[in-house]
Amino acid sequence: MNGAKSLVLTLLDSGVDTCFANPGTSEMHFVAALDQTPGMHCVLGLQENVVTGMADGYYRIARKPACTLLHCGPGLANGLANLHNARRAHSGIVNLVGDQATYHRPFDAPLTADTDGLARTVSAWVRTSTHACDVGRDAAAAVQAASSYPGRVATLILPSDTCWNEGGTVAQPLPVPAPAPMDPAAVENAARVLRSGKNVLILLSGHGVLGNSQALAWRIGRATGAAIEADFMASHLARGRGHMQLQRVPYNTDQAIKALSRFEHIILVNAKAPVGFFAYPGKPSTQYPPTAQLHVLSRPDQDAQLALGALVDALGAPESAIPDPGPRPIAAKGAPTPEGLAQTLAALMPEHSIVSDESISYGRGFYPQTHAAPDHDWLHLAGGAIGGGLPVATGAAIAAGGKRRVISLQADGSAMYSVQSLWTQAREKLPCTTIILNNGKYNILIGEYANVGAKPGATAMKMLDLGDPDLNWVKIANGMGVEAARASTMEELATLMAHSFRQDGPFLIELMV
Amino acid sequence: MNGAKSLVLTLLDSGVDTCFANPGTSEMHFVAALDQTPGMHCVLGLQENVVTGMADGYYRIARKPACTLLHCGPGLANGLANLHNARRAHSGIVNLVGDQATYHRPFDAPLTADTDGLARTVSAWVRTSTHACDVGRDAAAAVQAASSYPGRVATLILPSDTCWNEGGTVAQPLPVPAPAPMDPAAVENAARVLRSGKNVLILLSGHGVLGNSQALAWRIGRATGAAIEADFMASHLARGRGHMQLQRVPYNTDQAIKALSRFEHIILVNAKAPVGFFAYPGKPSTQYPPTAQLHVLSRPDQDAQLALGALVDALGAPESAIPDPGPRPIAAKGAPTPEGLAQTLAALMPEHSIVSDESISYGRGFYPQTHAAPDHDWLHLAGGAIGGGLPVATGAAIAAGGKRRVISLQADGSAMYSVQSLWTQAREKLPCTTIILNNGKYNILIGEYANVGAKPGATAMKMLDLGDPDLNWVKIANGMGVEAARASTMEELATLMAHSFRQDGPFLIELMV
Repeated sequence: MNGAKSLVLTLLDSGVDTCFANPGTSEMHFVAALDQTPGMHCVLGLQENVVTGMADGYYRIARKPACTLLHCGPGLANGLANLHNARRAHSGIVNLVGDQATYHRPFDAPLTADTDGLARTVSAWVRTSTHACDVGRDAAAAVQAASSYPGRVATLILPSDTCWNEGGTVAQPLPVPAPAPMDPAAVENAARVLRSGKNVLILLSGHGVLGNSQALAWRIGRATGAAIEADFMASHLARGRGHMQLQRVPYNTDQAIKALSRFEHIILVNAKAPVGFFAYPGKPSTQYPPTAQLHVLSRPDQDAQLALGALVDALGAPESAIPDPGPRPIAAKGAPTPEGLAQTLAALMPEHSIVSDESISYGRGFYPQTHAAPDHDWLHLAGGAIGGGLPVATGAAIAAGGKRRVISLQADGSAMYSVQSLWTQAREKLPCTTIILNNGKYNILIGEYANVGAKPGATAMKMLDLGDPDLNWVKIANGMGVEAARASTMEELATLMAHSFRQDGPFLIELMV
Repeated sequence: MNGAKSLVLTLLDSGVDTCFANPGTSEMHFVAALDQTPGMHCVLGLQENVVTGMADGYYRIARKPACTLLHCGPGLANGLANLHNARRAHSGIVNLVGDQATYHRPFDAPLTADTDGLARTVSAWVRTSTHACDVGRDAAAAVQAASSYPGRVATLILPSDTCWNEGGTVAQPLPVPAPAPMDPAAVENAARVLRSGKNVLILLSGHGVLGNSQALAWRIGRATGAAIEADFMASHLARGRGHMQLQRVPYNTDQAIKALSRFEHIILVNAKAPVGFFAYPGKPSTQYPPTAQLHVLSRPDQDAQLALGALVDALGAPESAIPDPGPRPIAAKGAPTPEGLAQTLAALMPEHSIVSDESISYGRGFYPQTHAAPDHDWLHLAGGAIGGGLPVATGAAIAAGGKRRVISLQADGSAMYSVQSLWTQAREKLPCTTIILNNGKYNILIGEYANVGAKPGATAMKMLDLGDPDLNWVKIANGMGVEAARASTMEELATLMAHSFRQDGPFLIELMV
């Protein structure tokens, strides 16, 4: 058996059964091995940032890693931005990169690049196989690394001769290490702070806003009067009926500082201390009061739910059900507004929908109107590298086996970054509804420009405006095989959303905002 | 004056007057400085690989660097593949990357990444400014590095506080260093080899296929009987009437080995020794005979024209005009073929056109039919990272000030990589004619798969085929504001080409092949 075949069999044995791919010449033996071995679902992306973003979205919903298949250093480079996002989202990915044969590398052929150096910028684990007989072993180690709590990017670089040479050996799956152990002293300390009667914020992120964590946090809040919020950088929240009515710390630095100003203590649950997305002249980097004390209940590599459970026990916090959010909103009418969009979404989304939110400037206020929607998952752009939303939606739909509606709330500027995702949605006939928020500009940057103190002139607007010519999203979607229509009112949006939710395949709504 | 203003003024003083940009929050002070300072032509790309590819194409035609403007590590990451291509093409680029403020970086905000590490994978020169007062000095040094023969990628990383802080100082332009000196011993050695009566190949690349180099090489060939070919990796050839009827070393390893088998000596003029794009089992990495002797007349950092001139003198090679290539072809008829396309192109292309060739599998045979076309420049994908063709065409058109027709011969699979380029062509109203060679598949990979020894099955074809759904390039182009039409015969192609050559702005022809 050659190395490629041992790779495929080891991946399957280790539970990796989905491969997001854009292969090249150096990966042909891997493609051949996939062809000869049933069991791997292969999904083509027409650019590598689509491939890696799909792997991120897949992990968030499947909670197990998929593999990618990328072509040499430049193919990896194309996928780095969404690997950056995946790293920030703690998504586990077995990132496979084919490369020049070991003996061919010194000849510096055109596609030769510093593949290892590129991989290290986004990966928690990097290895380059050097012999066919090691590929199975290395693949099992990569799956182990990617699966380690809370999920990591593990890059395995495979020179083409390690794939085509004989001597491949299938490796047994390696055990997935448990999360780092809980710290009883941290639990005691948090309990002490919560009993102090001071203004306390419990800041949740990672697994702290998933699974049973919210129910535990709610009990702690009820028992102690502590406030509970989600980190702005949280990548994935369980939301809607049955979940907490959480707010995120605001994106805007001034608003974040104001929102956090009253707290004397902040207990971090798999969250980092709140810092600005960017620095601004004369404004602090940190958003919490200088006098506030930070307390780590659990780090990102510790089990948030276990820590919150221990804290419930330490406090003796009584059972308390998360309250009902009230009646489901009805669809909005009239001209498009962010609130109206959120309301219509809450009114119409099917139960267990997945929302992929890359709405940027338009979407900061979607949360309040969607608390009373049915149970759903809400995915954010964790790393800030735009172009994550559409691929994440696509990968999430694959992870859900086409059984859950995926709704993209997608800014136009960032949609253009990975527009090729639409084609994969069409090919895989995925139940993806994309709502393009077409404002014809990089609106967030026009806001940021205002912070510089001036009104943008012609030169600046040329770099901030997406008009001249206007993008026509219906035509772009149709060109990639996705049915699409334009909505200019909330009524039209509601009609199109309802229509798309009845379809098996993808649909794009261009909402003129 | 703040650092940003000193940056813009220094760039302008150093002759950099074109900025390809996709800015973000950390670059807003630079955008403001551009807004307040006339003289810089700012061109927006809707994804960074378009931005960097435009800068590559600009350099190849303008022969002076433009600057880019990218946003943080992930923005740089998105542009790396075309920086890789630019590096291989020896294109000079002042690659500006805004980044987190110096004091904000330790807080590891979401967009924080190893910007320096990413930059080093593609740059000959990397520097991070640390104070506003250094920005001017660093910018002048970056222009100097980028302009150094034969052109380099120079990356200057600008933390946002170095742009907004006061203390900016405009720096004087630095002298552009001359090419490395010619080696008289190399010239003598080449003359000796050429006089030996053995089978000699003169292999040209870089500036060896530009300017007056071809005329000099022709004289040497006439005087000595040596064969003359272009390196497959040559990124830019002067072609058509008045230029040599050069062939490139074939891409296919077997064909290349066969083509080079008769040579006992190979004289390298700014070229590297011919090696395979990839390794294949049982085939050598090098394509020249093991017994052939390699001789370096000039390295890529030496002046090819000077070296060839010295060799002409050493040989006493008499004046000899490059012969006329014969009558211009007439447009082809019937079903599309590669030869027919090349013939039609030669028949119709305006004088001084620029051809951006990312035709991949379809385009290996375009050269013979286009020798008798009018004088033109032909640009290749030097680094093999697909997605270069459309951005390079766009940047080349900007460099030519809209005065030269730019024709993209563009494979469909690679066109999807940087499809956003079409929008910039529309916004800038560039005379770009894009001919999409729509074969609905990654045809080169289907050929490569055959080398593995098997016929692709369903799983493999799912990763090699672009059908299901078919891409509709007319709709995609229209969606980005570019007029477009489909051609299924050579007659239709000729009509559409002639139509597009009369237009001021861009036009896309989807050729069904």
